Amino acid sequence: MGMREDLRYLLAPRSVALIGISPDENAAFKGKPLRYLQKHGFNGRTYLVNPNYAEIQGLKTYPSVTDLPEPADVALVLVPTPAVLNTVTECCLKGIPFISVFTSGFKELGREGVERERQLVELCRAHGSRLVGPNGYGVTNFWHGGAVSPSPILETPNLIMGRVALIAQSGAMSALLANHFLDAGIGLSYVISTGNEADLDTCDFLECLLEDDRSQVICLFLEGVKNPKRLRELATKALFLRKPVITLKVGRSEKGSAVALAHTGRLMGSSVAYQALFRQSRIITVEDIEELIATTKLLVGNMERIREIDKAAFAIVSASGGASALVADSCHDVGVSLPDFSPETIARLKALQLFPSIANPLDIAPVLIRSNYLREFFDIIFADPNISSYGVVITSQTGSLGDSLANALIQARHKYHDKIIFALTLSGSLTKTVTELLTESGIDVFSSIPLTVKAVGHISRYIKLIHEQADADTSDLLTPRVDASRRSRVAALMQGTGKKVLSEYKSRELLSYYGIRGPNERLVFTIDEAEACAEEIGFPVVLKVQSPDIAHKAREGVMRVGIRNQGELREAYVRCVERAKKVIDASIDGVLIQEMILGQGIELLAGLAKDPGLGMMLTFGLGGSAVEVLKEFSSCVLPATMKDIEEMIRESKAFQLLKDVPQAVAAVRMILVDLCLVATELGEFLEAVDMNPVVVVPGTGRVIALDALVVVNQGVFATGTGAHI
Amino acid sequence: MGMREDLRYLLAPRSVALIGISPDENAAFKGKPLRYLQKHGFNGRTYLVNPNYAEIQGLKTYPSVTDLPEPADVALVLVPTPAVLNTVTECCLKGIPFISVFTSGFKELGREGVERERQLVELCRAHGSRLVGPNGYGVTNFWHGGAVSPSPILETPNLIMGRVALIAQSGAMSALLANHFLDAGIGLSYVISTGNEADLDTCDFLECLLEDDRSQVICLFLEGVKNPKRLRELATKALFLRKPVITLKVGRSEKGSAVALAHTGRLMGSSVAYQALFRQSRIITVEDIEELIATTKLLVGNMERIREIDKAAFAIVSASGGASALVADSCHDVGVSLPDFSPETIARLKALQLFPSIANPLDIAPVLIRSNYLREFFDIIFADPNISSYGVVITSQTGSLGDSLANALIQARHKYHDKIIFALTLSGSLTKTVTELLTESGIDVFSSIPLTVKAVGHISRYIKLIHEQADADTSDLLTPRVDASRRSRVAALMQGTGKKVLSEYKSRELLSYYGIRGPNERLVFTIDEAEACAEEIGFPVVLKVQSPDIAHKAREGVMRVGIRNQGELREAYVRCVERAKKVIDASIDGVLIQEMILGQGIELLAGLAKDPGLGMMLTFGLGGSAVEVLKEFSSCVLPATMKDIEEMIRESKAFQLLKDVPQAVAAVRMILVDLCLVATELGEFLEAVDMNPVVVVPGTGRVIALDALVVVNQGVFATGTGAHI
Repeated sequence: MGMREDLRYLLAPRSVALIGISPDENAAFKGKPLRYLQKHGFNGRTYLVNPNYAEIQGLKTYPSVTDLPEPADVALVLVPTPAVLNTVTECCLKGIPFISVFTSGFKELGREGVERERQLVELCRAHGSRLVGPNGYGVTNFWHGGAVSPSPILETPNLIMGRVALIAQSGAMSALLANHFLDAGIGLSYVISTGNEADLDTCDFLECLLEDDRSQVICLFLEGVKNPKRLRELATKALFLRKPVITLKVGRSEKGSAVALAHTGRLMGSSVAYQALFRQSRIITVEDIEELIATTKLLVGNMERIREIDKAAFAIVSASGGASALVADSCHDVGVSLPDFSPETIARLKALQLFPSIANPLDIAPVLIRSNYLREFFDIIFADPNISSYGVVITSQTGSLGDSLANALIQARHKYHDKIIFALTLSGSLTKTVTELLTESGIDVFSSIPLTVKAVGHISRYIKLIHEQADADTSDLLTPRVDASRRSRVAALMQGTGKKVLSEYKSRELLSYYGIRGPNERLVFTIDEAEACAEEIGFPVVLKVQSPDIAHKAREGVMRVGIRNQGELREAYVRCVERAKKVIDASIDGVLIQEMILGQGIELLAGLAKDPGLGMMLTFGLGGSAVEVLKEFSSCVLPATMKDIEEMIRESKAFQLLKDVPQAVAAVRMILVDLCLVATELGEFLEAVDMNPVVVVPGTGRVIALDALVVVNQGVFATGTGAHI
Repeated sequence: MGMREDLRYLLAPRSVALIGISPDENAAFKGKPLRYLQKHGFNGRTYLVNPNYAEIQGLKTYPSVTDLPEPADVALVLVPTPAVLNTVTECCLKGIPFISVFTSGFKELGREGVERERQLVELCRAHGSRLVGPNGYGVTNFWHGGAVSPSPILETPNLIMGRVALIAQSGAMSALLANHFLDAGIGLSYVISTGNEADLDTCDFLECLLEDDRSQVICLFLEGVKNPKRLRELATKALFLRKPVITLKVGRSEKGSAVALAHTGRLMGSSVAYQALFRQSRIITVEDIEELIATTKLLVGNMERIREIDKAAFAIVSASGGASALVADSCHDVGVSLPDFSPETIARLKALQLFPSIANPLDIAPVLIRSNYLREFFDIIFADPNISSYGVVITSQTGSLGDSLANALIQARHKYHDKIIFALTLSGSLTKTVTELLTESGIDVFSSIPLTVKAVGHISRYIKLIHEQADADTSDLLTPRVDASRRSRVAALMQGTGKKVLSEYKSRELLSYYGIRGPNERLVFTIDEAEACAEEIGFPVVLKVQSPDIAHKAREGVMRVGIRNQGELREAYVRCVERAKKVIDASIDGVLIQEMILGQGIELLAGLAKDPGLGMMLTFGLGGSAVEVLKEFSSCVLPATMKDIEEMIRESKAFQLLKDVPQAVAAVRMILVDLCLVATELGEFLEAVDMNPVVVVPGTGRVIALDALVVVNQGVFATGTGAHI
């Protein structure tokens, strides 16, 4: 690996060049990077470049990059926007491998900036230099004298070196989050702001940090993901290496890609797609800054334990019933269970003859007021084989009680080193001394019940993930074999209609090539044909006029269910065809006569929909007319593994209805695997596939796609990009 | 009103007696109340009682209550448990109107304590004294020298006097919460710990505080509600007086009253019932301590504005895109909308020629770097008629920028006094000086995005409630007229079955007396009758064997849907009756032949279920086989107002499906009103009524209770308490 590929020289440079540095050390951004290097004891070589000064703060200052005595490992570019291209050209020519451009005025400005950024990337590519930014603070390294960045996080008097790395695009967010970590007493390894990610992106840095021993937990603040597939691969590697990756992704409030004609598209928001990506990647996701901080704190303080224990079975001990109830409520909200203590523990606690009742949460008021029992008490509960993590709630306001509790806890902490033990102090300023005592002894102290419980939940799930990975079969991606002749035949069918939306009958024909079955039905063109067909299928039947121009058959009155006899059939035929003819410009492709499924079967939804950022997604959930009200479904980024699909089924509420009908679960699984094949083979021609309802016929376990809708990307055919079919 | 009824003498006593006070001022609880009175400058008369000392800290100490020169307004009882009854007797005989018993060892201990507590109450009732506690800290009054309590909150060096009152049962929680308020800089009026509420309860204190001018916001920490009806009445009064009541109720994790045979009972958790109670009472509910603090802070700082403005239209201004996205995400999660600025504001902002785009959230980075524009900028946005509340996000780490922002904000605060303006500082320690600047100038500063947004959401809803109340019709409780003869007839029918669960047919018969319709159906006893009946109703039909002993007809195989002809009917009749006979001890009451509703109608659930704490609840939501998976329903405490029922319908997801079918909404409303009549007339005989599914027949808007189940409280008949039917 050449130096330019090895980001370690970027993360810990031996020499840096500050280009456009100002002699005013208080000048925001332009003056400060030099002061930061000095302040935090950077011990590499520092070169200054500014044509207007011969020296700055007693350091020789070079008129241009060309004049530098050596190509520094990293150049930090602080010059104004119009000068950036020339400066970077000089850096490239000098052979500087890493160029970190702080200057803004590129892609973030729109069209003009996009072109300028393109030139910048092209230039670096041509010379083999790698680019950080533009429009980002670049890299700060807490273990290496802060290194080279204008980030205001370097204003901090003392960098707390630690094991947590932080990557964000936005410079402001990277500094803001880093500051929150430091305020919470969490040490950092690197804070990286990738800016516009014109060249090096979040995944590049993530990959590098996975190899970095100092970074044990990696936090990502994401606005989007450029390469979802690579993120999944790196996340898999991170899990293998037991390095938790935590993401805070903004954009839950964004509207999704509204493929307005298909349910699946309407349901999918961008946030749903990202949730699916993170779940499939086994990445820990948090929703706000506080949850990020609490989760990281609990993780980084317990990484060795987390790697060893097999589940985060959680117990609460508290002297306040009210506080116990609050913690139990939070556990309930987040899905953290509170298992019983082991029978031995219960017996030993009973033998103390202090406790009127023993449960989890455990009321320790009786021990607190007889504090000579405290040590024995902790010896009993921390030895419990059923429990591996303990939250000790401290609400006591009186100094001596808090002190003895803290002292007993600290003693126990050393003895039961494999247990996760933390304190939850709820009395604010009154317990400050206890907090200090505990923190100094390595017991994490939290102060918010819901945040702490969320952190416990994340750790539980992470431990489960580690163990699942160990047990898992080879979970390769499902990449079904493409049948080229079928592919071109079906594509021709799609193109042939010339329509964006296929009629139900055509949609079902397309799906039938992939093994997805519909109800017993026939397309007819006359009343006589309809009568013969209904006789054959058996009453009651359903009648639906077929037209690619009428998406909402029920609303337009061109369908009828529950037709009981020939008389009703004739009447319905005439009426529905009449209504269809009134829909302006609608072409009628015949009338579908279908068997009617009797009884209220379980109604499901299955489909495919394209997310603008993450591509084709597989979707499964509760269907029927309530689908858009319920929004009960789960999704998968494609390609997916069999395990992803299995999890998607099991996490859906629909599964709760299906689970007692094994043949229905198997049939659903098959449909979803078939849809993966559809996505692989027809992905580029498709906008969406929407099957709703897919009905589980009562009593039989038979699963039928009662309605289907295929939305075609006719643009592919028009522009000829699909010419290779 | 006599003194004993006027709790003001309890809240602000002119004289207090400390009974069982210890000379050791550091003795937990027993020694401290005297020190607290002295420390916080209580200026009433203080009497000490302890037979073992002639004086304590230079104050004359009386051997017994009897010896006191006057009956103090309040006695604080600190004596050991066995001595409490005698002491309280003495207090009563002395004529002390309010006796606050700190001592524990009563109801909370179980049976033995219950009896002791009963004696205590009886004693006070007999003498006309009122009791606080036992097992509580009693009353602290921040405006009145702390007053008389052993609460550790009085350890605080300086009580911050303020407008927030706090009531909790638990002493520990009252002190813990009060401490959180003080840490957040929120001043308090009273902190009241009601203990076991043997006599005076939360509602008594709430009623008194509604009349207290110093208490503008009242916070309740609830473990349960003794008298839900009274709480609703007081909450209505509080809304009328514009005094927000905020509750934090623990117990979300508790299991509900599992009336295991009916869906409605299984669905209802105790927490659902309380949610309904609080919603109907228009009480603000929060889920954790942090949300309580943030919401109270935003409320108390803006009460005058909240009373004046007509909606809390919210805008965010922020110099960080990342922070804006985080706030927008939180708004999305909580349902806080971000309306557009008015056209004038947009035009005036555009005229500044600084902003590339104008939206809410508004990016103020362009103004921040040209801080001479700041004042003009705030003048523009705070004058916007569309917006009444503003969150100004401060992420800037550099001192001068933060200072000029803070100064401009403070200027604007004075000018736009009717607007809710608060700051959200996100950079932790680096913005401490800005925080201090703002706080001193009366601008609330928050630091957590999700908590602040939740607080904004609560304020929005509260403002809406105030205006709804102003617009509302007289919203009296629905108390339908009881028809005594129908009541005794139906009760006889229920008693007559001798069964806990009525069969579907019997259940429907009962409901039909109250106007609730089922499908077209007949009960038959032979195959011949079944054939004739099916012919009359028209195929397809449904067949169900009727037995009060078979609750799950589908699971036991004693029902069949979609019977198409006489052949299928005969086969189904024989088979289902055979299956029913195999169910041990099942009595068969005939076979029901029903019309079959064709097509997938909207399936709803409607019913009644008894909550152990809050009594009969009305329930409405999505029905069908997925009901227990979906858990999509809402509830109402009974008796309800028409408005409660209307809101229950409208807040349910089911309404999203119904809203386009006005006749279906009307039919549902009728069914719910009918159920109120059932509850009023039959409440004491009923455990639950469960109608699932109630089907909206496709295309017709006809609403039919397809299945029904009545669970009878046969115990009433057995014990003869129902003898007055």
